[in-house]
Amino acid sequence: MPQFDLGAWSAARLALVEQCLSGWVVDDAPAGLGDAMRYAVLDGGKRLRPLLVLAASEALRGNEHAAMRAACAAELIHAYSLVHDDMPCMDNDVLRRGKPTVHVKFGQAQALLAGDALQALAFELLAPDDDKVPAAIQAALCRLLARAAGHEGMAGGQAIDLASVGLPLDEGQLREMHKRKTGALLQGSVLMGAACGGATGQARDALAQYGAAIGLAFQVVDDILDVTADSATLGKTAGKDAAQDKPTYVSLLGLERSRAHAQELLALALAALEASGLPDTRALQALARMVVNRDN
Amino acid sequence: MPQFDLGAWSAARLALVEQCLSGWVVDDAPAGLGDAMRYAVLDGGKRLRPLLVLAASEALRGNEHAAMRAACAAELIHAYSLVHDDMPCMDNDVLRRGKPTVHVKFGQAQALLAGDALQALAFELLAPDDDKVPAAIQAALCRLLARAAGHEGMAGGQAIDLASVGLPLDEGQLREMHKRKTGALLQGSVLMGAACGGATGQARDALAQYGAAIGLAFQVVDDILDVTADSATLGKTAGKDAAQDKPTYVSLLGLERSRAHAQELLALALAALEASGLPDTRALQALARMVVNRDN
Repeated sequence: MPQFDLGAWSAARLALVEQCLSGWVVDDAPAGLGDAMRYAVLDGGKRLRPLLVLAASEALRGNEHAAMRAACAAELIHAYSLVHDDMPCMDNDVLRRGKPTVHVKFGQAQALLAGDALQALAFELLAPDDDKVPAAIQAALCRLLARAAGHEGMAGGQAIDLASVGLPLDEGQLREMHKRKTGALLQGSVLMGAACGGATGQARDALAQYGAAIGLAFQVVDDILDVTADSATLGKTAGKDAAQDKPTYVSLLGLERSRAHAQELLALALAALEASGLPDTRALQALARMVVNRDN
Repeated sequence: MPQFDLGAWSAARLALVEQCLSGWVVDDAPAGLGDAMRYAVLDGGKRLRPLLVLAASEALRGNEHAAMRAACAAELIHAYSLVHDDMPCMDNDVLRRGKPTVHVKFGQAQALLAGDALQALAFELLAPDDDKVPAAIQAALCRLLARAAGHEGMAGGQAIDLASVGLPLDEGQLREMHKRKTGALLQGSVLMGAACGGATGQARDALAQYGAAIGLAFQVVDDILDVTADSATLGKTAGKDAAQDKPTYVSLLGLERSRAHAQELLALALAALEASGLPDTRALQALARMVVNRDN
Protein backbone atom coordinates (compact mmCIF):
# COMPACT_ATOMS: atom_id res chain seq x y z
CA MET A 1 0.00 0.00 0.00
CA PRO A 2 1.28 3.50 -0.76
CA GLN A 3 1.70 6.01 2.06
CA PHE A 4 -1.66 7.41 3.19
CA ASP A 5 -1.98 11.19 3.44
CA LEU A 6 -4.78 11.92 5.95
CA GLY A 7 -4.47 15.66 5.39
CA ALA A 8 -5.13 15.40 1.67
CA TRP A 9 -7.80 12.74 2.13
CA SER A 10 -9.64 14.85 4.72
CA ALA A 11 -9.31 18.13 2.85
CA ALA A 12 -11.00 16.76 -0.25
CA ARG A 13 -13.88 15.33 1.76
CA LEU A 14 -14.29 18.27 4.12
CA ALA A 15 -14.65 20.65 1.18
CA LEU A 16 -17.67 18.62 0.09
CA VAL A 17 -19.03 18.29 3.64
CA GLU A 18 -18.87 22.07 4.13
CA GLN A 19 -20.57 22.66 0.80
CA CYS A 20 -23.35 20.20 1.62
CA LEU A 21 -23.84 21.52 5.15
CA SER A 22 -24.05 25.05 3.80
CA GLY A 23 -26.65 23.98 1.26
CA TRP A 24 -28.68 21.84 3.65
CA VAL A 25 -28.68 24.09 6.70
CA VAL A 26 -30.90 26.69 5.14
CA ASP A 27 -30.77 30.38 5.81
CA ASP A 28 -34.43 30.83 4.91
CA ALA A 29 -35.68 29.35 8.17
CA PRO A 30 -37.90 32.03 9.69
CA ALA A 31 -37.34 34.73 12.27
CA GLY A 32 -33.60 34.35 12.78
CA LEU A 33 -33.80 30.59 13.32
CA GLY A 34 -31.81 29.91 10.15
CA ASP A 35 -29.07 32.30 11.24
CA ALA A 36 -28.74 30.57 14.61
CA MET A 37 -28.71 27.12 12.98
CA ARG A 38 -25.99 28.12 10.50
CA TYR A 39 -23.95 29.82 13.20
CA ALA A 40 -24.07 26.61 15.23
CA VAL A 41 -22.93 24.40 12.36
CA LEU A 42 -20.82 26.25 9.79
CA ASP A 43 -17.21 27.42 9.90
CA GLY A 44 -16.06 25.40 12.83
CA GLY A 45 -15.35 22.04 14.32
CA LYS A 46 -13.07 19.19 13.44
CA ARG A 47 -15.81 17.37 11.53
CA LEU A 48 -14.58 14.11 13.00
CA ARG A 49 -17.99 12.47 12.78
CA PRO A 50 -18.46 13.19 9.06
CA LEU A 51 -14.96 11.90 8.35
CA LEU A 52 -15.70 8.68 10.23
CA VAL A 53 -18.91 8.15 8.26
CA LEU A 54 -17.14 8.73 4.96
CA ALA A 55 -14.10 6.61 5.82
CA ALA A 56 -16.25 3.67 6.91
CA SER A 57 -18.44 3.94 3.84
CA GLU A 58 -15.40 4.12 1.54
CA ALA A 59 -13.86 1.06 3.18
CA LEU A 60 -16.98 -0.78 2.01
CA ARG A 61 -17.45 1.09 -1.29
CA GLY A 62 -20.76 2.33 0.06
CA ASN A 63 -23.46 4.51 -1.50
CA GLU A 64 -21.84 7.96 -1.75
CA HIS A 65 -25.08 9.93 -1.64
CA ALA A 66 -26.15 8.13 1.50
CA ALA A 67 -22.72 8.58 3.08
CA MET A 68 -22.62 12.35 2.52
CA ARG A 69 -26.11 12.70 3.99
CA ALA A 70 -25.19 10.56 6.98
CA ALA A 71 -21.93 12.50 7.41
CA CYS A 72 -23.80 15.80 7.59
CA ALA A 73 -26.57 14.36 9.76
CA ALA A 74 -24.05 13.16 12.34
CA GLU A 75 -22.49 16.61 12.40
CA LEU A 76 -25.91 18.25 12.89
CA ILE A 77 -26.60 16.04 15.89
CA HIS A 78 -23.18 16.91 17.31
CA ALA A 79 -23.76 20.62 16.68
CA TYR A 80 -27.20 20.61 18.32
CA SER A 81 -25.82 18.81 21.36
CA LEU A 82 -23.17 21.50 21.79
CA VAL A 83 -25.76 24.28 21.52
CA HIS A 84 -27.95 22.74 24.21
CA ASP A 85 -24.99 21.64 26.35
CA ASP A 86 -23.61 25.20 26.43
CA MET A 87 -26.88 26.70 27.68
CA PRO A 88 -27.00 28.26 31.16
CA CYS A 89 -29.12 25.46 32.61
CA MET A 90 -26.48 22.92 31.47
CA ASP A 91 -22.77 23.81 31.31
CA ASN A 92 -23.32 27.56 31.01
CA ASP A 93 -20.44 28.05 28.63
CA VAL A 94 -19.84 31.25 26.70
CA LEU A 95 -17.02 30.20 24.35
CA ARG A 96 -17.11 27.47 21.70
CA ARG A 97 -14.78 27.06 18.72
CA GLY A 98 -13.32 30.43 19.65
CA LYS A 99 -16.66 32.21 19.23
CA PRO A 100 -19.49 33.22 21.58
CA THR A 101 -21.85 30.29 22.10
CA VAL A 102 -25.21 30.30 20.33
CA HIS A 103 -27.26 31.39 23.32
CA VAL A 104 -24.85 34.27 24.00
CA LYS A 105 -25.19 35.42 20.41
CA PHE A 106 -28.89 34.73 19.72
CA GLY A 107 -30.52 34.34 23.13
CA GLN A 108 -31.53 31.22 25.01
CA ALA A 109 -34.90 30.70 23.38
CA GLN A 110 -33.45 30.83 19.87
CA ALA A 111 -30.61 28.52 20.94
CA LEU A 112 -33.11 26.01 22.29
CA LEU A 113 -35.11 26.10 19.03
CA ALA A 114 -32.02 25.99 16.82
CA GLY A 115 -30.86 22.84 18.59
CA ASP A 116 -34.29 21.28 18.25
CA ALA A 117 -34.49 22.18 14.56
CA LEU A 118 -30.98 20.83 13.89
CA GLN A 119 -31.94 17.48 15.36
CA ALA A 120 -35.02 17.31 13.12
CA LEU A 121 -32.96 18.38 10.10
CA ALA A 122 -30.49 15.56 10.73
CA PHE A 123 -33.27 13.01 10.26
CA GLU A 124 -34.68 14.94 7.32
CA LEU A 125 -31.30 14.63 5.56
CA LEU A 126 -31.34 10.86 6.06
CA ALA A 127 -34.73 10.38 4.40
CA PRO A 128 -34.62 12.25 1.08
CA ASP A 129 -37.52 12.01 -1.33
CA ASP A 130 -35.38 10.75 -4.20
CA ASP A 131 -34.12 7.44 -5.56
CA LYS A 132 -30.39 7.98 -5.00
CA VAL A 133 -30.57 6.41 -1.55
CA PRO A 134 -32.51 3.11 -1.29
CA ALA A 135 -35.25 3.08 1.34
CA ALA A 136 -33.53 0.26 3.22
CA ILE A 137 -30.42 2.43 3.71
CA GLN A 138 -32.55 5.45 4.68
CA ALA A 139 -34.34 3.40 7.32
CA ALA A 140 -31.10 1.87 8.64
CA LEU A 141 -29.47 5.29 8.94
CA CYS A 142 -32.46 6.75 10.81
CA ARG A 143 -32.40 3.79 13.20
CA LEU A 144 -28.66 4.11 13.90
CA LEU A 145 -28.72 7.87 14.34
CA ALA A 146 -31.79 7.85 16.58
CA ARG A 147 -30.22 5.26 18.87
CA ALA A 148 -26.91 7.11 18.99
CA ALA A 149 -28.59 10.43 19.81
CA GLY A 150 -31.27 9.34 22.25
CA HIS A 151 -31.61 8.01 25.77
CA GLU A 152 -29.45 4.95 25.09
CA GLY A 153 -26.79 7.21 23.62
CA MET A 154 -25.86 10.84 23.79
CA ALA A 155 -28.83 12.24 25.70
CA GLY A 156 -28.61 9.42 28.24
CA GLY A 157 -24.90 10.08 28.71
CA GLN A 158 -25.56 13.74 29.33
CA ALA A 159 -28.12 12.84 31.95
CA ILE A 160 -25.52 10.70 33.74
CA ASP A 161 -23.04 13.56 33.39
CA LEU A 162 -25.52 15.97 35.01
CA ALA A 163 -26.19 13.61 37.86
CA SER A 164 -22.49 12.90 38.43
CA VAL A 165 -21.21 16.36 39.31
CA GLY A 166 -19.34 16.11 42.59
CA LEU A 167 -19.81 12.34 42.83
CA PRO A 168 -16.91 9.87 42.96
CA LEU A 169 -17.51 7.62 39.93
CA ASP A 170 -15.43 4.48 39.50
CA GLU A 171 -13.87 3.68 36.15
CA GLY A 172 -16.76 1.46 35.11
CA GLN A 173 -19.30 4.20 35.75
CA LEU A 174 -17.14 6.80 34.03
CA ARG A 175 -16.79 4.52 31.00
CA GLU A 176 -20.54 3.94 30.90
CA MET A 177 -21.18 7.68 30.94
CA HIS A 178 -18.71 8.41 28.16
CA LYS A 179 -19.72 5.39 26.11
CA ARG A 180 -23.08 7.08 25.82
CA LYS A 181 -22.27 10.76 25.96
CA THR A 182 -19.53 10.91 23.33
CA GLY A 183 -18.93 7.33 22.25
CA ALA A 184 -22.41 6.53 20.96
CA LEU A 185 -22.41 9.19 18.24
CA LEU A 186 -18.81 8.47 17.21
CA GLN A 187 -19.54 4.75 17.01
CA GLY A 188 -22.87 5.57 15.36
CA SER A 189 -21.01 7.55 12.70
CA VAL A 190 -18.85 4.53 11.90
CA LEU A 191 -21.91 2.27 11.84
CA MET A 192 -23.81 4.67 9.57
CA GLY A 193 -20.88 4.57 7.15
CA ALA A 194 -20.93 0.79 7.38
CA ALA A 195 -24.67 0.77 6.65
CA CYS A 196 -24.08 2.85 3.50
CA GLY A 197 -21.98 -0.07 2.31
CA GLY A 198 -24.38 -2.73 3.50
CA ALA A 199 -21.88 -4.15 5.99
CA THR A 200 -22.88 -7.38 7.74
CA GLY A 201 -21.24 -10.04 9.86
CA GLN A 202 -17.53 -9.83 10.51
CA ALA A 203 -16.95 -6.44 8.89
CA ARG A 204 -19.86 -4.84 10.71
CA ASP A 205 -18.87 -6.29 14.08
CA ALA A 206 -15.25 -5.21 13.61
CA LEU A 207 -16.30 -1.68 12.72
CA ALA A 208 -18.57 -1.59 15.77
CA GLN A 209 -15.54 -2.50 17.93
CA TYR A 210 -13.41 0.10 16.17
CA GLY A 211 -16.10 2.73 16.77
CA ALA A 212 -16.44 1.83 20.44
CA ALA A 213 -12.68 2.03 21.00
CA ILE A 214 -12.17 5.39 19.32
CA GLY A 215 -15.34 6.73 20.91
CA LEU A 216 -13.92 6.09 24.34
CA ALA A 217 -10.40 7.16 23.31
CA PHE A 218 -11.81 10.49 22.15
CA GLN A 219 -13.17 11.21 25.60
CA VAL A 220 -10.04 10.09 27.43
CA VAL A 221 -8.04 12.50 25.26
CA ASP A 222 -10.64 15.23 25.83
CA ASP A 223 -10.18 14.83 29.57
CA ILE A 224 -6.39 15.01 29.14
CA LEU A 225 -6.60 18.15 26.97
CA ASP A 226 -8.97 19.81 29.44
CA VAL A 227 -6.05 19.73 31.87
CA THR A 228 -3.04 20.18 29.59
CA ALA A 229 -4.18 22.59 26.87
CA ASP A 230 -5.13 26.27 27.07
CA SER A 231 -8.44 27.77 25.96
CA ALA A 232 -6.95 29.36 22.83
CA THR A 233 -5.69 26.01 21.54
CA LEU A 234 -8.91 24.21 22.45
CA GLY A 235 -11.23 26.93 21.12
CA LYS A 236 -13.31 26.36 24.23
CA THR A 237 -12.92 26.97 27.94
CA ALA A 238 -10.07 24.82 29.28
CA GLY A 239 -10.07 23.42 32.80
CA LYS A 240 -13.85 23.57 33.08
CA ASP A 241 -14.34 19.94 34.11
CA ALA A 242 -12.10 20.43 37.12
CA ALA A 243 -13.71 23.78 37.87
CA GLN A 244 -17.16 22.16 37.79
CA ASP A 245 -15.97 19.21 39.88
CA LYS A 246 -16.86 16.72 37.15
CA PRO A 247 -15.36 13.24 37.25
CA THR A 248 -12.83 12.71 34.43
CA TYR A 249 -10.30 10.08 33.42
CA VAL A 250 -7.53 12.37 34.62
CA SER A 251 -9.11 12.90 38.03
CA LEU A 252 -9.66 9.16 38.33
CA LEU A 253 -6.50 7.64 36.77
CA GLY A 254 -4.06 10.56 36.74
CA LEU A 255 -2.45 12.01 33.63
CA GLU A 256 0.03 9.27 32.80
CA ARG A 257 -2.34 6.35 33.17
CA SER A 258 -4.93 8.26 31.14
CA ARG A 259 -2.40 8.69 28.32
CA ALA A 260 -1.54 4.99 28.46
CA HIS A 261 -5.23 4.12 28.37
CA ALA A 262 -5.72 6.21 25.24
CA GLN A 263 -2.89 4.32 23.55
CA GLU A 264 -4.44 0.98 24.57
CA LEU A 265 -7.73 2.02 23.03
CA LEU A 266 -5.93 3.04 19.83
CA ALA A 267 -4.34 -0.41 19.67
CA LEU A 268 -7.78 -2.00 20.14
CA ALA A 269 -9.22 0.12 17.33
CA LEU A 270 -6.41 -0.81 14.95
CA ALA A 271 -6.69 -4.49 15.84
CA ALA A 272 -10.41 -4.37 15.06
CA LEU A 273 -9.68 -2.96 11.62
CA GLU A 274 -7.13 -5.69 11.08
CA ALA A 275 -9.79 -8.26 11.92
CA SER A 276 -12.43 -6.67 9.70
CA GLY A 277 -11.28 -8.40 6.55
CA LEU A 278 -11.70 -5.12 4.67
CA PRO A 279 -8.99 -4.54 2.04
CA ASP A 280 -8.30 -0.83 2.64
CA THR A 281 -8.91 0.72 6.05
CA ARG A 282 -6.11 3.29 5.89
CA ALA A 283 -8.40 6.28 6.37
CA LEU A 284 -10.01 4.67 9.41
CA GLN A 285 -6.58 3.84 10.83
CA ALA A 286 -5.35 7.39 10.30
CA LEU A 287 -8.47 8.85 11.91
CA ALA A 288 -7.98 6.65 14.97
CA ARG A 289 -4.39 7.91 15.32
CA MET A 290 -5.59 11.47 14.91
CA VAL A 291 -8.22 11.06 17.62
CA VAL A 292 -5.60 9.88 20.11
CA ASN A 293 -2.72 12.14 19.14
CA ARG A 294 -4.62 15.43 18.56
CA ASP A 295 -3.78 18.52 20.56
CA ASN A 296 -7.19 20.21 20.39
CA MET B 1 -73.44 4.00 6.87
CA PRO B 2 -74.32 3.30 10.51
CA GLN B 3 -73.95 6.04 13.13
CA PHE B 4 -70.30 6.60 14.07
CA ASP B 5 -69.39 6.65 17.76
CA LEU B 6 -66.18 8.68 18.12
CA GLY B 7 -66.02 8.03 21.85
CA ALA B 8 -65.98 4.26 21.43
CA TRP B 9 -63.67 4.42 18.41
CA SER B 10 -61.19 6.62 20.28
CA ALA B 11 -61.32 4.69 23.54
CA ALA B 12 -60.33 1.43 21.86
CA ARG B 13 -57.40 3.05 20.06
CA LEU B 14 -56.24 5.21 22.96
CA ALA B 15 -55.98 2.16 25.19
CA LEU B 16 -53.48 0.71 22.71
CA VAL B 17 -51.68 4.03 22.26
CA GLU B 18 -51.20 4.38 26.02
CA GLN B 19 -49.97 0.82 26.28
CA CYS B 20 -47.47 1.32 23.46
CA LEU B 21 -46.27 4.69 24.77
CA SER B 22 -45.75 3.18 28.19
CA GLY B 23 -43.74 0.33 26.68
CA TRP B 24 -41.70 2.48 24.32
CA VAL B 25 -40.92 5.41 26.60
CA VAL B 26 -38.59 3.44 28.79
CA ASP B 27 -38.08 3.96 32.48
CA ASP B 28 -34.57 2.51 32.35
CA ALA B 29 -33.06 5.62 30.77
CA PRO B 30 -30.28 6.67 33.13
CA ALA B 31 -30.06 9.20 35.92
CA GLY B 32 -33.69 10.26 36.11
CA LEU B 33 -33.97 10.91 32.37
CA GLY B 34 -36.48 8.11 31.95
CA ASP B 35 -38.66 9.48 34.74
CA ALA B 36 -38.71 12.92 33.15
CA MET B 37 -39.51 11.46 29.73
CA ARG B 38 -42.38 9.37 31.06
CA TYR B 39 -43.74 12.26 33.10
CA ALA B 40 -43.78 14.38 29.96
CA VAL B 41 -45.64 11.81 27.90
CA LEU B 42 -47.82 9.50 29.98
CA ASP B 43 -51.17 10.07 31.66
CA GLY B 44 -52.15 13.22 29.90
CA GLY B 45 -53.10 14.95 26.74
CA LYS B 46 -55.90 14.54 24.25
CA ARG B 47 -53.74 12.34 22.00
CA LEU B 48 -55.21 14.11 18.99
CA ARG B 49 -52.14 13.46 16.83
CA PRO B 50 -52.15 9.69 17.41
CA LEU B 51 -55.86 9.56 16.65
CA LEU B 52 -55.32 11.45 13.39
CA VAL B 53 -52.56 9.05 12.33
CA LEU B 54 -54.70 6.02 13.11
CA ALA B 55 -57.85 7.41 11.49
CA ALA B 56 -56.01 8.31 8.28
CA SER B 57 -54.30 4.94 8.16
CA GLU B 58 -57.58 3.10 8.75
CA ALA B 59 -59.29 5.07 5.98
CA LEU B 60 -56.68 3.53 3.66
CA ARG B 61 -56.46 0.13 5.38
CA GLY B 62 -52.81 0.92 6.11
CA ASN B 63 -50.10 -1.11 7.86
CA GLU B 64 -51.22 -1.27 11.49
CA HIS B 65 -47.75 -1.72 12.97
CA ALA B 66 -46.49 1.32 11.10
CA ALA B 67 -49.54 3.34 12.09
CA MET B 68 -49.17 2.65 15.81
CA ARG B 69 -45.50 3.57 15.68
CA ALA B 70 -46.27 6.77 13.76
CA ALA B 71 -49.10 7.58 16.17
CA CYS B 72 -46.77 7.34 19.15
CA ALA B 73 -43.93 9.14 17.36
CA ALA B 74 -46.18 12.12 16.60
CA GLU B 75 -47.20 12.26 20.26
CA LEU B 76 -43.55 12.17 21.37
CA ILE B 77 -42.73 15.13 19.14
CA HIS B 78 -45.74 16.98 20.55
CA ALA B 79 -44.73 16.14 24.11
CA TYR B 80 -41.12 17.23 23.62
CA SER B 81 -42.26 20.53 22.12
CA LEU B 82 -44.41 21.23 25.17
CA VAL B 83 -41.52 20.45 27.53
CA HIS B 84 -39.20 22.87 25.75
CA ASP B 85 -41.91 25.46 25.15
CA ASP B 86 -42.73 25.60 28.86
CA MET B 87 -39.13 26.29 29.89
CA PRO B 88 -38.28 29.63 31.48
CA CYS B 89 -36.39 30.88 28.42
CA MET B 90 -39.50 30.25 26.29
CA ASP B 91 -43.03 30.61 27.72
CA ASN B 92 -41.99 30.07 31.33
CA ASP B 93 -45.09 28.12 32.20
CA VAL B 94 -45.52 26.16 35.43
CA LEU B 95 -48.78 24.29 34.76
CA ARG B 96 -49.48 21.75 32.00
CA ARG B 97 -52.26 19.19 31.86
CA GLY B 98 -53.05 20.19 35.42
CA LYS B 99 -49.58 19.20 36.68
CA PRO B 100 -46.33 21.06 37.31
CA THR B 101 -44.37 21.36 34.07
CA VAL B 102 -41.35 19.11 33.54
CA HIS B 103 -38.73 21.72 34.38
CA VAL B 104 -40.57 22.62 37.60
CA LYS B 105 -40.62 18.97 38.60
CA PHE B 106 -37.20 17.79 37.35
CA GLY B 107 -35.14 20.94 36.80
CA GLN B 108 -34.33 22.79 33.60
CA ALA B 109 -31.35 20.69 32.54
CA GLN B 110 -33.29 17.43 32.81
CA ALA B 111 -36.24 19.01 30.97
CA LEU B 112 -33.96 20.08 28.16
CA LEU B 113 -32.48 16.57 27.88
CA ALA B 114 -35.85 14.84 28.19
CA GLY B 115 -37.18 16.90 25.27
CA ASP B 116 -34.10 16.11 23.21
CA ALA B 117 -34.33 12.40 24.00
CA LEU B 118 -38.06 12.31 23.20
CA GLN B 119 -37.39 13.77 19.76
CA ALA B 120 -34.74 11.11 19.09
CA LEU B 121 -37.05 8.38 20.39
CA ALA B 122 -39.77 9.49 17.98
CA PHE B 123 -37.50 8.72 15.04
CA GLU B 124 -36.29 5.52 16.67
CA LEU B 125 -39.89 4.29 16.83
CA LEU B 126 -40.33 4.95 13.12
CA ALA B 127 -37.34 2.83 12.10
CA PRO B 128 -37.67 -0.51 13.88
CA ASP B 129 -35.24 -3.30 13.16
CA ASP B 130 -37.94 -5.78 12.16
CA ASP B 131 -39.84 -6.80 9.06
CA LYS B 132 -43.33 -5.73 10.17
CA VAL B 133 -42.88 -2.28 8.65
CA PRO B 134 -41.42 -2.17 5.11
CA ALA B 135 -38.34 0.05 4.73
CA ALA B 136 -40.16 2.27 2.24
CA ILE B 137 -42.80 3.11 4.85
CA GLN B 138 -40.14 3.63 7.54
CA ALA B 139 -38.29 6.09 5.31
CA ALA B 140 -41.47 7.93 4.31
CA LEU B 141 -42.53 8.30 7.94
CA CYS B 142 -39.11 9.65 8.98
CA ARG B 143 -39.24 12.15 6.10
CA LEU B 144 -42.74 13.38 6.99
CA LEU B 145 -42.08 13.63 10.72
CA ALA B 146 -38.74 15.41 10.27
CA ARG B 147 -40.31 18.02 8.01
CA ALA B 148 -43.26 18.52 10.33
CA ALA B 149 -41.02 18.96 13.38
CA GLY B 150 -38.19 21.04 11.95
CA HIS B 151 -37.52 24.52 10.67
CA GLU B 152 -40.17 24.30 7.95
CA GLY B 153 -42.66 23.13 10.53
CA MET B 154 -43.03 23.28 14.27
CA ALA B 155 -39.63 24.67 15.26
CA GLY B 156 -39.88 27.33 12.55
CA GLY B 157 -43.33 28.31 13.77
CA GLN B 158 -42.08 28.66 17.30
CA ALA B 159 -39.29 30.93 16.08
CA ILE B 160 -41.87 33.16 14.40
CA ASP B 161 -43.94 33.05 17.59
CA LEU B 162 -40.94 34.19 19.65
CA ALA B 163 -40.19 37.02 17.25
CA SER B 164 -43.83 38.15 17.12
CA VAL B 165 -44.45 39.06 20.75
CA GLY B 166 -45.80 42.59 20.85
CA LEU B 167 -45.87 42.92 17.04
CA PRO B 168 -49.04 43.57 15.03
CA LEU B 169 -49.22 40.57 12.66
CA ASP B 170 -51.77 40.60 9.86
CA GLU B 171 -53.93 37.54 9.23
CA GLY B 172 -51.55 36.18 6.58
CA GLN B 173 -48.60 36.34 8.94
CA LEU B 174 -50.59 34.84 11.80
CA ARG B 175 -51.74 32.01 9.52
CA GLU B 176 -48.16 31.37 8.39
CA MET B 177 -46.99 31.17 12.00
CA HIS B 178 -49.71 28.76 13.05
CA LYS B 179 -49.47 26.69 9.87
CA ARG B 180 -45.97 25.85 11.02
CA LYS B 181 -46.21 25.95 14.79
CA THR B 182 -49.27 23.76 15.29
CA GLY B 183 -50.53 22.92 11.81
CA ALA B 184 -47.44 21.16 10.48
CA LEU B 185 -47.48 18.36 13.05
CA LEU B 186 -51.26 17.90 12.86
CA GLN B 187 -51.11 17.76 9.07
CA GLY B 188 -47.99 15.61 9.34
CA SER B 189 -49.91 13.16 11.53
CA VAL B 190 -52.59 12.82 8.86
CA LEU B 191 -49.94 12.40 6.16
CA MET B 192 -48.09 9.78 8.19
CA GLY B 193 -51.32 7.83 8.48
CA ALA B 194 -51.78 8.20 4.74
CA ALA B 195 -48.23 6.94 4.16
CA CYS B 196 -48.99 3.83 6.22
CA GLY B 197 -51.65 3.07 3.63
CA GLY B 198 -49.48 4.02 0.67
CA ALA B 199 -51.77 6.90 -0.33
CA THR B 200 -50.99 8.62 -3.61
CA GLY B 201 -52.65 11.10 -5.96
CA GLN B 202 -56.17 12.26 -5.18
CA ALA B 203 -56.48 10.60 -1.77
CA ARG B 204 -53.13 11.91 -0.59
CA ASP B 205 -53.81 15.45 -1.79
CA ALA B 206 -57.25 15.47 -0.21
CA LEU B 207 -55.86 14.26 3.12
CA ALA B 208 -53.16 16.95 2.93
CA GLN B 209 -55.91 19.56 2.53
CA TYR B 210 -57.89 18.03 5.37
CA GLY B 211 -54.80 18.12 7.58
CA ALA B 212 -54.03 21.73 6.72
CA ALA B 213 -57.60 22.82 7.48
CA ILE B 214 -57.87 21.08 10.85
CA GLY B 215 -54.33 22.15 11.73
CA LEU B 216 -55.30 25.77 11.39
CA ALA B 217 -58.73 25.23 12.96
CA PHE B 218 -57.07 23.72 16.01
CA GLN B 219 -55.09 26.90 16.59
CA VAL B 220 -58.06 29.22 15.99
CA VAL B 221 -60.00 27.26 18.61
CA ASP B 222 -56.97 27.34 20.93
CA ASP B 223 -56.93 31.10 20.68
CA ILE B 224 -60.66 31.23 21.41
CA LEU B 225 -60.34 28.92 24.44
CA ASP B 226 -57.43 30.96 25.79
CA VAL B 227 -59.93 33.79 26.20
CA THR B 228 -63.15 31.95 27.04
CA ALA B 229 -62.09 28.98 29.20
CA ASP B 230 -60.61 28.87 32.68
CA SER B 231 -57.32 27.23 33.66
CA ALA B 232 -59.00 24.29 35.38
CA THR B 233 -60.91 23.33 32.24
CA LEU B 234 -57.87 23.85 29.99
CA GLY B 235 -55.42 22.09 32.29
CA LYS B 236 -52.98 24.88 31.50
CA THR B 237 -52.74 28.58 32.25
CA ALA B 238 -55.63 30.42 30.57
CA GLY B 239 -55.28 33.95 29.24
CA LYS B 240 -51.54 33.67 28.84
CA ASP B 241 -51.44 34.76 25.20
CA ALA B 242 -53.10 38.05 26.06
CA ALA B 243 -50.93 38.43 29.17
CA GLN B 244 -47.82 37.90 27.05
CA ASP B 245 -49.09 40.26 24.35
CA LYS B 246 -48.97 37.55 21.70
CA PRO B 247 -50.93 38.03 18.50
CA THR B 248 -53.90 35.63 18.30
CA TYR B 249 -56.91 35.09 16.04
CA VAL B 250 -59.10 36.59 18.73
CA SER B 251 -56.96 39.71 19.09
CA LEU B 252 -56.93 40.08 15.32
CA LEU B 253 -60.44 39.06 14.26
CA GLY B 254 -62.42 39.27 17.50
CA LEU B 255 -64.28 36.37 19.12
CA GLU B 256 -67.23 36.05 16.75
CA ARG B 257 -65.25 36.16 13.52
CA SER B 258 -62.75 33.71 15.00
CA ARG B 259 -65.60 31.28 15.73
CA ALA B 260 -66.94 31.70 12.22
CA HIS B 261 -63.47 31.11 10.80
CA ALA B 262 -63.17 27.85 12.74
CA GLN B 263 -66.46 26.68 11.24
CA GLU B 264 -65.27 27.61 7.73
CA LEU B 265 -62.14 25.54 8.25
CA LEU B 266 -64.24 22.61 9.46
CA ALA B 267 -66.31 22.84 6.27
CA LEU B 268 -63.10 22.85 4.21
CA ALA B 269 -61.82 19.79 6.03
CA LEU B 270 -65.05 17.88 5.49
CA ALA B 271 -65.17 18.87 1.82
CA ALA B 272 -61.63 17.55 1.36
CA LEU B 273 -62.68 14.19 2.81
CA GLU B 274 -65.66 14.16 0.47
CA ALA B 275 -63.28 14.72 -2.46
CA SER B 276 -60.81 12.06 -1.31
CA GLY B 277 -62.65 9.20 -2.93
CA LEU B 278 -62.07 7.13 0.22
CA PRO B 279 -65.02 4.89 1.15
CA ASP B 280 -65.07 5.43 4.92
CA THR B 281 -63.74 8.66 6.44
CA ARG B 282 -66.12 8.79 9.40
CA ALA B 283 -63.37 8.81 12.03
CA LEU B 284 -61.56 11.65 10.25
CA GLN B 285 -64.85 13.57 9.98
CA ALA B 286 -65.61 13.09 13.64
CA LEU B 287 -62.11 14.16 14.68
CA ALA B 288 -62.43 17.36 12.64
CA ARG B 289 -65.71 18.15 14.40
CA MET B 290 -64.11 17.42 17.75
CA VAL B 291 -61.18 19.76 17.02
CA VAL B 292 -63.54 22.63 16.29
CA ASN B 293 -66.18 22.00 18.91
CA ARG B 294 -63.94 21.02 21.85
CA ASP B 295 -64.02 22.99 25.10
CA ASN B 296 -60.46 22.23 26.27
